[in-house]
Amino acid sequence: LRTGIPEVVYGKGKGEKQIVEATLKLAERNGVALATKIENIKRVERKLKEYNLNNYIVKINRVGKTLSIRKKDYKIKKFGCVGIITAGTSDIPIAEEAIETLNLMGINYIKAYDVGIAGVHRLFPYLKRMLSSKVSCIIAIAGMEGALPSLVSSLVDVPVIGVPTSTGYGIKITPLLTMLHSCSPGLAIVNIDNGFGAAVFAGLIVKNLLREVHD
Amino acid sequence: LRTGIPEVVYGKGKGEKQIVEATLKLAERNGVALATKIENIKRVERKLKEYNLNNYIVKINRVGKTLSIRKKDYKIKKFGCVGIITAGTSDIPIAEEAIETLNLMGINYIKAYDVGIAGVHRLFPYLKRMLSSKVSCIIAIAGMEGALPSLVSSLVDVPVIGVPTSTGYGIKITPLLTMLHSCSPGLAIVNIDNGFGAAVFAGLIVKNLLREVHD
Amino acid sequence: LRTGIPEVVYGKGKGEKQIVEATLKLAERNGVALATKIENIKRVERKLKEYNLNNYIVKINRVGKTLSIRKKDYKIKKFGCVGIITAGTSDIPIAEEAIETLNLMGINYIKAYDVGIAGVHRLFPYLKRMLSSKVSCIIAIAGMEGALPSLVSSLVDVPVIGVPTSTGYGIKITPLLTMLHSCSPGLAIVNIDNGFGAAVFAGLIVKNLLREVHD
Amino acid sequence: LRTGIPEVVYGKGKGEKQIVEATLKLAERNGVALATKIENIKRVERKLKEYNLNNYIVKINRVGKTLSIRKKDYKIKKFGCVGIITAGTSDIPIAEEAIETLNLMGINYIKAYDVGIAGVHRLFPYLKRMLSSKVSCIIAIAGMEGALPSLVSSLVDVPVIGVPTSTGYGIKITPLLTMLHSCSPGLAIVNIDNGFGAAVFAGLIVKNLLREVHD
Amino acid sequence: LRTGIPEVVYGKGKGEKQIVEATLKLAERNGVALATKIENIKRVERKLKEYNLNNYIVKINRVGKTLSIRKKDYKIKKFGCVGIITAGTSDIPIAEEAIETLNLMGINYIKAYDVGIAGVHRLFPYLKRMLSSKVSCIIAIAGMEGALPSLVSSLVDVPVIGVPTSTGYGIKITPLLTMLHSCSPGLAIVNIDNGFGAAVFAGLIVKNLLREVHD
Amino acid sequence: LRTGIPEVVYGKGKGEKQIVEATLKLAERNGVALATKIENIKRVERKLKEYNLNNYIVKINRVGKTLSIRKKDYKIKKFGCVGIITAGTSDIPIAEEAIETLNLMGINYIKAYDVGIAGVHRLFPYLKRMLSSKVSCIIAIAGMEGALPSLVSSLVDVPVIGVPTSTGYGIKITPLLTMLHSCSPGLAIVNIDNGFGAAVFAGLIVKNLLREVHD
Amino acid sequence: LRTGIPEVVYGKGKGEKQIVEATLKLAERNGVALATKIENIKRVERKLKEYNLNNYIVKINRVGKTLSIRKKDYKIKKFGCVGIITAGTSDIPIAEEAIETLNLMGINYIKAYDVGIAGVHRLFPYLKRMLSSKVSCIIAIAGMEGALPSLVSSLVDVPVIGVPTSTGYGIKITPLLTMLHSCSPGLAIVNIDNGFGAAVFAGLIVKNLLREVHD
Amino acid sequence: LRTGIPEVVYGKGKGEKQIVEATLKLAERNGVALATKIENIKRVERKLKEYNLNNYIVKINRVGKTLSIRKKDYKIKKFGCVGIITAGTSDIPIAEEAIETLNLMGINYIKAYDVGIAGVHRLFPYLKRMLSSKVSCIIAIAGMEGALPSLVSSLVDVPVIGVPTSTGYGIKITPLLTMLHSCSPGLAIVNIDNGFGAAVFAGLIVKNLLREVHD
Ligand SMILES: Nc1ncnc2c1ncn2[C@@H]1O[C@H](COP(=O)(O)O)[C@@H](O)[C@H]1O
Ligand SMILES: Nc1ncnc2c1ncn2[C@@H]1O[C@H](COP(=O)(O)O)[C@@H](O)[C@H]1O
Ligand SMILES: Nc1ncnc2c1ncn2[C@@H]1O[C@H](COP(=O)(O)O)[C@@H](O)[C@H]1O
Ligand SMILES: Nc1ncnc2c1ncn2[C@@H]1O[C@H](COP(=O)(O)O)[C@@H](O)[C@H]1O
Ligand SMILES: [Mg+2]
Ligand SMILES: [Mg+2]
Ligand SMILES: [Mg+2]
Ligand SMILES: [Mg+2]
Ligand SMILES: [Mg+2]
Ligand SMILES: [Mg+2]
Ligand SMILES: [Mg+2]
Ligand SMILES: [Mg+2]
Repeated sequence: LRTGIPEVVYGKGKGEKQIVEATLKLAERNGVALATKIENIKRVERKLKEYNLNNYIVKINRVGKTLSIRKKDYKIKKFGCVGIITAGTSDIPIAEEAIETLNLMGINYIKAYDVGIAGVHRLFPYLKRMLSSKVSCIIAIAGMEGALPSLVSSLVDVPVIGVPTSTGYGIKITPLLTMLHSCSPGLAIVNIDNGFGAAVFAGLIVKNLLREVHD
Repeated sequence: LRTGIPEVVYGKGKGEKQIVEATLKLAERNGVALATKIENIKRVERKLKEYNLNNYIVKINRVGKTLSIRKKDYKIKKFGCVGIITAGTSDIPIAEEAIETLNLMGINYIKAYDVGIAGVHRLFPYLKRMLSSKVSCIIAIAGMEGALPSLVSSLVDVPVIGVPTSTGYGIKITPLLTMLHSCSPGLAIVNIDNGFGAAVFAGLIVKNLLREVHD
Repeated sequence: LRTGIPEVVYGKGKGEKQIVEATLKLAERNGVALATKIENIKRVERKLKEYNLNNYIVKINRVGKTLSIRKKDYKIKKFGCVGIITAGTSDIPIAEEAIETLNLMGINYIKAYDVGIAGVHRLFPYLKRMLSSKVSCIIAIAGMEGALPSLVSSLVDVPVIGVPTSTGYGIKITPLLTMLHSCSPGLAIVNIDNGFGAAVFAGLIVKNLLREVHD
Repeated sequence: LRTGIPEVVYGKGKGEKQIVEATLKLAERNGVALATKIENIKRVERKLKEYNLNNYIVKINRVGKTLSIRKKDYKIKKFGCVGIITAGTSDIPIAEEAIETLNLMGINYIKAYDVGIAGVHRLFPYLKRMLSSKVSCIIAIAGMEGALPSLVSSLVDVPVIGVPTSTGYGIKITPLLTMLHSCSPGLAIVNIDNGFGAAVFAGLIVKNLLREVHD
Repeated sequence: LRTGIPEVVYGKGKGEKQIVEATLKLAERNGVALATKIENIKRVERKLKEYNLNNYIVKINRVGKTLSIRKKDYKIKKFGCVGIITAGTSDIPIAEEAIETLNLMGINYIKAYDVGIAGVHRLFPYLKRMLSSKVSCIIAIAGMEGALPSLVSSLVDVPVIGVPTSTGYGIKITPLLTMLHSCSPGLAIVNIDNGFGAAVFAGLIVKNLLREVHD
Repeated sequence: LRTGIPEVVYGKGKGEKQIVEATLKLAERNGVALATKIENIKRVERKLKEYNLNNYIVKINRVGKTLSIRKKDYKIKKFGCVGIITAGTSDIPIAEEAIETLNLMGINYIKAYDVGIAGVHRLFPYLKRMLSSKVSCIIAIAGMEGALPSLVSSLVDVPVIGVPTSTGYGIKITPLLTMLHSCSPGLAIVNIDNGFGAAVFAGLIVKNLLREVHD
Repeated sequence: LRTGIPEVVYGKGKGEKQIVEATLKLAERNGVALATKIENIKRVERKLKEYNLNNYIVKINRVGKTLSIRKKDYKIKKFGCVGIITAGTSDIPIAEEAIETLNLMGINYIKAYDVGIAGVHRLFPYLKRMLSSKVSCIIAIAGMEGALPSLVSSLVDVPVIGVPTSTGYGIKITPLLTMLHSCSPGLAIVNIDNGFGAAVFAGLIVKNLLREVHD
Repeated sequence: LRTGIPEVVYGKGKGEKQIVEATLKLAERNGVALATKIENIKRVERKLKEYNLNNYIVKINRVGKTLSIRKKDYKIKKFGCVGIITAGTSDIPIAEEAIETLNLMGINYIKAYDVGIAGVHRLFPYLKRMLSSKVSCIIAIAGMEGALPSLVSSLVDVPVIGVPTSTGYGIKITPLLTMLHSCSPGLAIVNIDNGFGAAVFAGLIVKNLLREVHD
């Protein structure tokens, strides 16, 4: 039914055994599976050694705190392109979570990290490259004052998906509110730290390119 | 630069003269213009009579509280399709604001009003029709408990844009929170009552169909 | 006075010794007793071995984090029926807390776990079975966006008791607000994670069946 | 499907014409209908004079701000009993809204107004009378500090439905929070000022008496 | 200047050495001193053994988490009387903190623990005893729904000082709001868990009895 | 029972007729009565002319928005003294509400208006006069940042009752929070704008002087 | 004492007579005075005609909603310079309030309106001009998402004073939070809509230039 | 570009190795660097021993939880002066963080600790000294009720930068709100605990003295 959306194991609060086995089971069934928000990634790495994974391609993303498992005979055809931008370095884990999700959906991406409002001159060349690569949308990830997605949206003509993050200090709801109140139309958001959700949403936008058009 | 996004006059707090003249000025410049959230729509209707509008097509949407002005020689080519769904009847003004925005962007739409969670059986045939019409995305508008977008997103494979509304009673932030915490990926949201923003975002998704693809 | 409501020990913040002895004391006095929200259930299990419990039936529910103690000669007559539904798997501990409470009150139940809005087709057969079993009410437990109780209430004609949970991620008050703002009448709620309170309330509804009626 | 729950017109924000016609239309279809939260009750009274209502029994409740319309040939059989208690006089409109809802559902009731915590000695004889009349549940309505439902629940063995009100002054969410955090099990709540919802819930509890029992 | 108010060391976040030496220093200077909110009371007990305290009377209150130090030659004359009431057993630590403060101020007290709204019949005899003992005011301490101070205030003619507590579960601000919105005049409050502040305030009320009167 | 506390009519949301008659009825019964928070004081003044009030002493306080009615043969003996301080001029209505309450309780007072933190040098002579007049407590009323009660409490040895006000601009809960978090013990508070409650509390403190002492 | 800070009359909630006379009285005393936040500026204009103002220079700022009154013989020497920037057109009233305050303090200014993040290219030339004019600081005023001050601060080396505004729609606290959480040091803020406070603060910074330096 | 503002490493959540190397790298590049909010300062001290730091001057501030590194051949010329005031002893770490920042910017300072509203007489001589030393501004740091900056601002004629702290107990947002709502103009604030930001802002004010003036 809902083809193309990877099923995920939400890792927070789960033990390494539970994570590994749940992810394997999903991969067994669907060909591919993802675990996100893994709290102790090292323990998961060690745990994996106890399993016979000859028929699988296993990938740990330590920064993104994800585990991806894919059957060797399950092919993912790459297609389309999206941009991924972070304001600061502390937003990178959420970007990496999004990237692993895109990988499983077979979506290409261009990334630009640490190009937030405090170093805004670094942003422009990246945006240019994304637009010339015909990205279908841009995922913009920011914590602190969360102003980056609004700025990006005012500069480009593709949909921008804002992801507020809880990294950094202060009142956690701030970047969420900032993004919601953007005066630049063309921006929609997902929940705090929801890199996975942003990537699925982006993937569904890209999938439109495979559709015929109603005219 | 940001082609295809209609410029708008935000009507709240503005007098009828200010609204009419600002909208006319934008239409003069861009070929087309929109005013939204007009508080006294009747006064605007009366005011319009004082102007020579022979070269314009003028449209008042009383429910949506919008005014659209288009130069007669400015053509809008229709393209693509999006779905628009409201949970209740009190969400319709926001849907109509979105529709007027889509009209100016030249996007086709299919609408389904009052198909919220309390009468959920009415929802299914509409969703089917939207999917078979190859909508690129669905705008789902809901107040009160705000559960509809989450349900829609769990049933379809296209991106869903949730719009929480302030209509109905109670704590105004409720449907916003509900939509943010949806456990169904494929849903992103705009701010409370932002029908305009949802439509622009949807329009940008549709515009992707005009793009060549990076493979 | 308040017959039929089991006295409980609230386990959070209490040591294993305190929990065991308080529960035993209540069981001694009332024939039956319950401890809920036990933080270290394993320590309680070990502690129990130090006591002579020959005259008691002792039950640990590891998922529900409860301890029930009943005197062997204290009989509980089963009566009536309620439904218990959870949206996700992470809501199960709260459901199990409710079930242990129902057990002590002598109320039958039918349960349906993991039938939330993201997999809504699984919900319908369960509801049908509950209604044909003449449940007096349904306890609907959900975290995240908390939309399930509202949906259930719109589909059935018995009272629905919503229990928001704090499991999952995000702003903890979300499912509480969602349930309060349900547009479907026939839904009332208890506090976040209060499986015990929901079960007592359900039990009191069932007890009405033992009453004569005022006509 | 959902038999026995009256359909209602939510009056807030609606004009007198809209209210009268919507209610009439529902009464035409279902035999009976209710409009609640009418902001200008006098205008509705006057408006009604413009219609031929010979086949209807029309009732305005000025305090409860409701309009009930019933076809003369639609009979409502009275059944069961519930208690209705308010803490202060300013909570009475919500109680009257509940009562008009109960009337349409055919539920008997016993009421006790202004028996809140500041005059608690007045409460006891009313509770006694309710219990001896075998009420199936009690609706307890309170604003300000909202402590009454918790007290009632600690004194009786039937389910108590708390209704926080927004009357009085101060932070409107206070009585809602108080009721949610009651340390007396046997209490569930509906949203602020939701007299209608409380009555429907109570009516569904009473309807259980018509059910056969699963043993 | 501010005679009669004991200087205190606020223990939270402080190590045992810091607590003991700061308290000793104040006792040295003022004759008497108090440390409150001690997180590791056992370590403080052990630490005290390293000091020569022959000239001091030292008192640890394990429940109240306080340390009092008084010079042997510093006399405290007992005077007046206040009442201290807690709703639950988990509010007792705050009551004990208040009592140790009263002790240093030389104020007599009558205490009544666990007499909250869920067991309200236990409250009345205690109130009677307090009033016949001519208490100058009553400190009423409650968590959860926080309704007790309001009830007490409606039953007595002396000032009631409400102390909301953070013990128990749920939204911590609830009992604070409940007490602020009491509809019974004669109640004022201090901050959450501030047993010390309530006792100082009560002590200042008692001290009025030593004043001559302006007529 | 609760002797000495005047019964009051809360004027907000009530019409002039309702206010006048409710107050008269209470005065008839108790000898004396007060109405507070009267929204249209002029209409109440006019309304009063329609009644025969020969046996009453009637007092309107336009600033305090109160109406006091006293039977001519009801004597109030003056006793004790309290201080009343406001930070700004916009806090004066709340102070006047408190004063009218004190008048009915027969309590003397000394007032000092507009002596807030922005003109703090004006505060000191007033405090000196209050202390030398042996006030039993001080009511300190402040809006905006609400810092005055904390400062007063740090300078005097009598209980200080803080009253946060909603006058001025900004986030209304600010002065309430400021007062609750005072680092100066000897301060307790009542709810926002509750001049009446503060005065009743102060009156109960003064009444202690009539009590015999427990030693 | 506090030389150079104009005394102001806060106009909100005050009648035209009260505003005019209070401002005149301050001007009489200090040579100069300001009234801000005047709700009905037209009535104030008319009221002024009733007074003999021959010895005064009177200025109404309709956009800024201020009234300034200066004695003809009171000279204000112009000195220093500050920048004033607004994000949108709806922030202009707050900017004008600030400008009138600067005028009375004798501070020069350079202004740039409607240069927010949605039209960010317009911002740069203004900043350049301000820096080359040696402004001592910049006042940056923004509503909606409030991102402008943060961006400005990241581009300049002078202190930036952020003023969040309540204009526009949505959750009013958003721009305040955005500015507080700026990741660009060099930004401090005043309260929502406080143009007056920002200008006084800026004026005090400029006054430093008149000081000798401690080295 | 942004000369004179030290680049900082935000230490929270970072390991000792990451902190030391990031700070060293910045010092290498800029001549000077700072790390703030170091959670385990002892581990950083130990870690530093593993590096050859002959060419650097290294300074650990244990109270301020900072690490400063400066190249030996990088000279900082001292200039100007600012005041630094704390309300309590628990605010000192934030003051020390500010001081280390000022040190790197080459700004002189005068400090006054623990002179809050509870011991306000201690404040006056310090303020006098600061004013006679011609400070360009004052940083006022306070937790709890946060009233100190408002008081200071009402007593001096230089800009005051308020820093709310999260130390002490209670609702963390209280001192922030207090400072924002100050009725004394001349006060602007930075975010909670942002000693670094306050110091940079103060440093930029001082730098104005090096500018020529626009007249
Ligand atoms: N209905 C709407 N909802 C949200 N934002 C809107 C709406 N209509 C206009 N806007 C935004 O408001 C701005 C125009 O505001 P103004 O210049 O005050 O008319 C535009 O840039 C839009 O992005
Ligand atoms: N799981 C639970 N959720 C909410 N309330 C509970 C729960 N378990 C016990 N309680 C309440 O907590 C009280 C017992 O608390 P305690 O005396 O501290 O063990 C009982 O009166 C119950 O009403
Ligand atoms: N238990 C308590 N609750 C509230 N405030 C307290 C308490 N104990 C001490 N304090 C306050 O904390 C201050 C002492 O803090 P410190 O100097 O950090 O030990 C005193 O001025 C008291 O007013
Ligand atoms: N526009 C403004 N924004 C913030 N505070 C203001 C403003 N205008 C006046 N004030 C403050 O309000 C006080 C005057 O209030 P009032 O005595 O009621 O006129 C002054 O002390 C100012 O600090
Ligand atoms: Mg854009
Ligand atoms: Mg979907
Ligand atoms: Mg139902
Ligand atoms: Mg009960
Ligand atoms: Mg009382
Ligand atoms: Mg004091
Ligand atoms: Mg800067
Ligand atoms: Mg000042």
